[in-house]
Amino acid sequence: CPLPHGDCSLSRLLSLLLTARRSLEICLFAFSSPQLGSAVRLLHRRGVRVRIVTDAQYMGLQGSQIGLLRLAGIQVRHDQESGYMHHKFAIVDGRMVITGSLNWTTQAIQNNRENVLVMEDAEYVKPFVDEFERIWEEYNPINYRFF
Amino acid sequence: CPLPHGDCSLSRLLSLLLTARRSLEICLFAFSSPQLGSAVRLLHRRGVRVRIVTDAQYMGLQGSQIGLLRLAGIQVRHDQESGYMHHKFAIVDGRMVITGSLNWTTQAIQNNRENVLVMEDAEYVKPFVDEFERIWEEYNPINYRFF
Repeated sequence: CPLPHGDCSLSRLLSLLLTARRSLEICLFAFSSPQLGSAVRLLHRRGVRVRIVTDAQYMGLQGSQIGLLRLAGIQVRHDQESGYMHHKFAIVDGRMVITGSLNWTTQAIQNNRENVLVMEDAEYVKPFVDEFERIWEEYNPINYRFF
Repeated sequence: CPLPHGDCSLSRLLSLLLTARRSLEICLFAFSSPQLGSAVRLLHRRGVRVRIVTDAQYMGLQGSQIGLLRLAGIQVRHDQESGYMHHKFAIVDGRMVITGSLNWTTQAIQNNRENVLVMEDAEYVKPFVDEFERIWEEYNPINYRFF
């Protein structure tokens, strides 16, 4: 990749996401990268089933993409705990998991030392699929407590 | 595991670390778990070669284990950048990588939603070994700038 390191990482991540044809599950502590936000909205417009889980304390921070994603009609669920929903993974078409230390923020992509794993072995993908479905149900708005 | 979830995760992580016989490389954004700190010091006393890389902004925070690890004679290096050294991985005897979203803090182990991957395939282990050695040299104190 001939680009600067951060741009190169972003470009590789975008390419992987944009291979989604049927479904995209995203489970992210912090999501503020405008480019990644646009890519996710594009997939949603293309008819890919997008579901997002995020952290309640971080989703409202300045620069968060979560509001824009909801505005675009994408379903987002969040935790209701004092602990963090600290995962950072995405599942593409149920066949590929992208995970590691990276939150989807410009700061992390450009300035941090991070790792991103891309795995297609079912042995590694399945636990992430199972965890996503477990969290998705656990964070169902029907379970939210408001007082 | 019959223990509560957090204790169970901690116990599994401790068991994996304590299999180290020759070397342990740790690359962690935040390290404040007293139990994991004790385990690392025990391995050092047993003659395992322990090397630690951490984040400059986080290593001095209250509760950090980094000072105690240095006091025990373990080598620790840190970044000198405004960006975070955000990795969270350990390499046991050059054969097993433990990585994921988990920082080694009691808060994360007890209260957060996290993932930890344990991999022994060379295909996955080697990039982490290479990254550790690259960072270890890059953060060599000889390269530190003090003004």
